[in-house]
Amino acid sequence: MNYSAFHKLSYGLYIIATEYEGEKVGYIANTAFQITAEPSKIAISCNKDNYSAQKILDSKRFSISILKKEVDTSLIGKFGFMSGSDMNKFQGVETITAKTGAPIVIDSSVAWFDCEVLNSMDVGSHYLIIAEVVDGGVLSNEEPLTYAYYHAKYKMRSPKNAPTYIDPDKLADEPESEIAIEEQLAAEPAKETGDGIYSCTICGFQYDPEEGDPSMGIPPGTAFEDLPEDYRCPICNADKDFFKKVS
Amino acid sequence: MNYSAFHKLSYGLYIIATEYEGEKVGYIANTAFQITAEPSKIAISCNKDNYSAQKILDSKRFSISILKKEVDTSLIGKFGFMSGSDMNKFQGVETITAKTGAPIVIDSSVAWFDCEVLNSMDVGSHYLIIAEVVDGGVLSNEEPLTYAYYHAKYKMRSPKNAPTYIDPDKLADEPESEIAIEEQLAAEPAKETGDGIYSCTICGFQYDPEEGDPSMGIPPGTAFEDLPEDYRCPICNADKDFFKKVS
Repeated sequence: MNYSAFHKLSYGLYIIATEYEGEKVGYIANTAFQITAEPSKIAISCNKDNYSAQKILDSKRFSISILKKEVDTSLIGKFGFMSGSDMNKFQGVETITAKTGAPIVIDSSVAWFDCEVLNSMDVGSHYLIIAEVVDGGVLSNEEPLTYAYYHAKYKMRSPKNAPTYIDPDKLADEPESEIAIEEQLAAEPAKETGDGIYSCTICGFQYDPEEGDPSMGIPPGTAFEDLPEDYRCPICNADKDFFKKVS
Repeated sequence: MNYSAFHKLSYGLYIIATEYEGEKVGYIANTAFQITAEPSKIAISCNKDNYSAQKILDSKRFSISILKKEVDTSLIGKFGFMSGSDMNKFQGVETITAKTGAPIVIDSSVAWFDCEVLNSMDVGSHYLIIAEVVDGGVLSNEEPLTYAYYHAKYKMRSPKNAPTYIDPDKLADEPESEIAIEEQLAAEPAKETGDGIYSCTICGFQYDPEEGDPSMGIPPGTAFEDLPEDYRCPICNADKDFFKKVS
């Protein structure tokens, strides 16, 4: 099997969110898709390990926010690479409340759906959750974010919980189809560096020069600015430009 | 509900195919998506009215061909707008045979999957079919076709059986997000016209000047070249450039 074939499937990127017993939870998904037109039904595939999974099943509702092409990457870091069990992902995030009571993330979103869970299927590592769309709206006419664009621009891995996560060892070379997208991308100016601890703005990983990064073969005592230019976040694979000095 | 929100979901375009009791069948789908990584499972949403639906369930197998950006539109017409009950869609189409025995359409495809059906869920007008991916390959590094690109380039409707079909009356104006794609598109040269019967190369609809097209307000006795420039196929909405003279 050539696992690179899975990278040829097209997806968008979405924030799936709900509220259960007063707690707002949500995560980044690329598998949200319409399965019937009349009535409008949508299916999502949600990893059982996601903090949100059981809360979506218990609350019997969720919202889908369709992210825009030029998304605020901190939303992807927060909702894609961190767990709601450790933090309130909604702090500082603009939301509106759907008819069902689910919170809808409207920062960086072009459209949204409000969904009532009808049933779900245990498909192994994930729940396939079927819902009726009870409401939907358009927030912006900007282009939606596609997984292909996200992957080409940020070169980041899928979170391990994503149904589309592929062990990098299984992958052949990057498909050339992404080059066309890369050509559209403006070069990102490198951020200023300096001494001290740096945090990955995508997934929150912190680089501490005192510890180095043994997982990437970086010995203790290596300053951030002395890291090789091709150093990448050991969690989400973001490059050095995505690190910000935190102390 | 703003139904235009459904156009912000991102999809690819695929040919789903199987063979049952010696008969090859297939259709165009935009809802094929990975639902688990280990083992690799994919879900498709298949309209119960599709000639292929029961045959996929009976054969317990199907292939997915991921169409390329510059697809041969006759494949979309054949597999998207015609029924295997009326014709053999595979005539003149290049295929290989998957491990499961399903035919894989390799014309205009960048990659393929071979899938074994695990189970299915009745979700109303459609079956949601869950399958394990037993094999997969990459055929080309060309860009995959996305539904957004297809829709912007060809301005065509989804087939009525598609889970994403939306009654045009329910839709607000075309989302501007598609304009960016339109700007990338080269202008299609108009095809030569003349007297006689013309056939839509996308869906096969035949325009007969003796009958005209009452559904579009065209009276009998109107020659094809006298049709208004904005005339569109009453079946798939393709414009005049997609019609070829057949007699």
